[in-house]
This record gives sequence, C-alpha cells and structure tokens, in this order.
Amino acid sequence: MSDLAIIAGQGRLPGLLMQADPQAHVAGLQGFAPDGAESFRLEHLGSFLAGLRARGTKRIVFAGSLRRPSIDPTAIDAATAPLVPRLAMAMRQGDDALLRAVISVFEEAGLSVIGPTDLIPDLLPAQGVLTRAEPDSDAQGDADRATALLRATGPADLGQGVVVASGQVLALEALPGTDWMLESVAALRGDGPLARPVPVGGLLMKRPKPGQDRRIDLPVIGPDTVRRAAAAGLHGIAIEAGGVMILDRAETVAAADDAELFLSVVP
Amino acid sequence: MSDLAIIAGQGRLPGLLMQADPQAHVAGLQGFAPDGAESFRLEHLGSFLAGLRARGTKRIVFAGSLRRPSIDPTAIDAATAPLVPRLAMAMRQGDDALLRAVISVFEEAGLSVIGPTDLIPDLLPAQGVLTRAEPDSDAQGDADRATALLRATGPADLGQGVVVASGQVLALEALPGTDWMLESVAALRGDGPLARPVPVGGLLMKRPKPGQDRRIDLPVIGPDTVRRAAAAGLHGIAIEAGGVMILDRAETVAAADDAELFLSVVP
Repeated sequence: MSDLAIIAGQGRLPGLLMQADPQAHVAGLQGFAPDGAESFRLEHLGSFLAGLRARGTKRIVFAGSLRRPSIDPTAIDAATAPLVPRLAMAMRQGDDALLRAVISVFEEAGLSVIGPTDLIPDLLPAQGVLTRAEPDSDAQGDADRATALLRATGPADLGQGVVVASGQVLALEALPGTDWMLESVAALRGDGPLARPVPVGGLLMKRPKPGQDRRIDLPVIGPDTVRRAAAAGLHGIAIEAGGVMILDRAETVAAADDAELFLSVVP
Repeated sequence: MSDLAIIAGQGRLPGLLMQADPQAHVAGLQGFAPDGAESFRLEHLGSFLAGLRARGTKRIVFAGSLRRPSIDPTAIDAATAPLVPRLAMAMRQGDDALLRAVISVFEEAGLSVIGPTDLIPDLLPAQGVLTRAEPDSDAQGDADRATALLRATGPADLGQGVVVASGQVLALEALPGTDWMLESVAALRGDGPLARPVPVGGLLMKRPKPGQDRRIDLPVIGPDTVRRAAAAGLHGIAIEAGGVMILDRAETVAAADDAELFLSVVP
C-alpha cells in the first residue's frame, strides 16, 4: 500500500496521478470525486483526516478542479467543528487564501502536501520552443508586455493569463477563465456583435501568480487551449518554465503544429 | 478673441467646451476635426504651433477621442522635422507615454495645457450617491476589491475599468474599452455561446490610472455606460471623485434611476 492519498477533482490530472502511483488511496469531495474513489463531505473533513491517518497516509496531493462547495452547518461533525471558523473565514477571501487555509489544515493533521509535479516532473516542460513555429521579434515584444502585466496583476490575486497583440492588451483573464477569455477574443475578432477593430496576431501568456503555492492550483494548458488560441487568431502561446503544466504534451504540441502556432516555454 | 484653443477630436466633449468659451479657436487633427474647425496634419504640427502663437493663443485644451494617426514621412514640413524623433519614439510606447510627449511639445511651444475640467468643473461630480438607489454592503465589498485591483493594474498602463460581483472579478478593461467589457459581461450572463455560471449583480468601477496626467484623457461615463451596465446585470456604477467625468449628468442619472442602478462617486 502507498502512503499517498490523491484528493481528486474533475479533469485529466487525477487520472495521470493514479497511473503514476496505482497503489495510492483516492478520495474526493462529494459531487467531484472520480468513480470508485472515497467520497467525503466538507462538513466531515475532521473525520476524513482521522481516517487518512488511520490508514497510514503520510503524503497528500491535490489534483483537478472543483467549485467552491457550500457548507451545511447542521451536518458538521464533532471532529470538524474546530476547523469551521478558519475555513469559513478563508472562504470569504480570494482563491489563494482559501487554498492556503486548506493546505494548512492538512499539514496540521500531520500530512505532507506535495505537488502533482513532484510525482510527474514531466508535466512541466523545460525552457525552449516546443513547436515548428518559432516566436518572431514582435512576439518577443508582446511577451515582455504580458510578463510585466501578469507581475503587476498577480499580487491582486487576479489573472494567470493575458492576450497581447502589437504591444496592446486585448484581454486579461478573470473569473470566467482562460477558455472564456480566448472565446471572447475570437468574438472580438469575428463579425458578430462583439467584433471590434483590434490589432491582428498576438499571443496568450500564462504564468502562475507571484507568491502562489505551486503545490496546488498550477495553471494548465492542453490541446483545447491551443485550438481556442488558434480560433482567436493568435500566433502562439507562451508559458512560464516550471510554472504551467501541459497534461497532454504530445497532443498539445501536435495541435499547435497543425495550427502553425508557436508554443514557447519562457523564463 | 479668446486666448484659448480647443484641440478637438470625436465625441460630445468638444462641443461642451465650445459652449463654455464660444470665442475659443477650434482645431483638430485631419480626419477627426469637427465641422468648421481648423484642420491640421501631424506632419505639419510645427507650423500649426507657430500659427497658434501668431494668433495669440496662450492656453490649450485637448478634448475628444481619436485613433493613433499614421505619419507620412514625405509630408513632414521643416518646422515639424525637429519634433519627429520624439513623437516617433513616443508612438511606440503606451498611450500614457504618447500623451505626455504631445503635452510637452505644446508646452515647449509656450502654450499652457489645461484640462477640460478646469473650464467646466461641473464635469466632475462631488463625492456621494447621485441616484435613488444606494450601494448596499455587498456593493461596498465589491468596490473595495475593485479599487485594490485598479491600483495594482494602473502602473502597468492597463485598465481604467473593472466589473466585480460577490468579490470576484468578472472582467477587467483592456484595449477594447469599457463599452466592450460591459457587452462581454452581458454575453457572459446571457444564454449564447459565451454564457457561463458567474455570480449575479456586481458593479462597474472606473478610476483614472494612478500617475496619469489628469489634464488629458480622463475616463468618462454617460447614459450609454449606464444602459450597458444594466444590460450586463450590474447593480450599479462607482467612479472616483475628481477622476471620472460625466458629460451628461442629468441624463446619466435619469438613466440610472430608470434602471434602478446606483451611481456612486467614491473617494
């Protein structure tokens, strides 16, 4: 038996981790847990942690996405009650604060929180250009502007993505996420009601927020990101080396080559 | 004859200034000048400045919008040639840098650059709530988040507007502008392809960028802003006291009252 537990949400990442450690215990929040996994309610988090310790779990990895759960106060059990004030306070703050609170609850229960990339280092590509297409000097200028911008917005707990074309910022990622941002840029450049005259080309840059805990909630791109970037008329995608995961690297690079987009891993 | 010249672009503001000083000389960049105004080309800026001095102009006010003009190098006259390197360098930078360069060229020609609000102070409403509807405590929290965010993004020369709902950032203004941002939030909350589940309500906050020259390029709201905010499902609009102009205050407040939105002028 492994000493690892995977706290799994939605998406492809939990499955990759289960392949990496087939003996690991798999659990997930009710409504988000994969088939066959242990399912727990946030109201029973204290009992769930005790159960993990009892089965010899020492390491925890969080993987996959979920929405903020609501809490039913009448369902909170005795082992969870002491945790409620901290979680309730964190839930009123930004995503970063909530994740930090969740990590600290697991660590105080004696569990060591590791990142998905500690188990599968290959999720983080090394610096360089992964595609046949390469960024040109315009793209370099756009990338510099994008980096400066994400460094400025990160401390405000906003934005892991931005679209820049000819030095101008077409869109900055907010709550609706990267996919929505790319779809809105496609609408901006389309011929529907949201069409406007804006510079052609440009790139999508993704970076984690400065100071963000990289064991949890690293940004991700995949083949769909590439297809949406192409539909938005972009010339490429730049991601931060060590900061953004590619879950399906071969398929993602192939999609970029098909669309003649560059995919660049930058410092 | 007035010692004032109005450098006029598109929109309602030039007309308001012409009413405020009917004796003022009115000029505009070719393609953007109002009917009956003197029209000049950027390639002849030096001669244009000499002409202003010759007619006794001492004060300049910039009003209205325009797009970045292109420059035909073969059309540059002798009086303008010495200015070209500075303007060319500034045009490669952000909007703020370009406006600073233009202001300094006029000032070095011995002209004093004033702001539209120096002539019509009433364009800037005093702190307070202008509508029947008032912001509730949720709106206060959203306004605090919006303020923190615009303070963080301003130094990166991005964004005078943001939409926040339930503490979450739905959209941040970029190149396509405030109107586009509000239309995209309407699409986010609609039932078309850009629809996503996001928190209801929320507000639009507008503030000038910190450090921006307030004589030129102050943000503006009007009745259309209010109607677009209502169509986006927002509960109100907050603007910075002394930092955002309302060109048609009576009509703007009436539109907000009709839509039961609050319009709040905040510190």
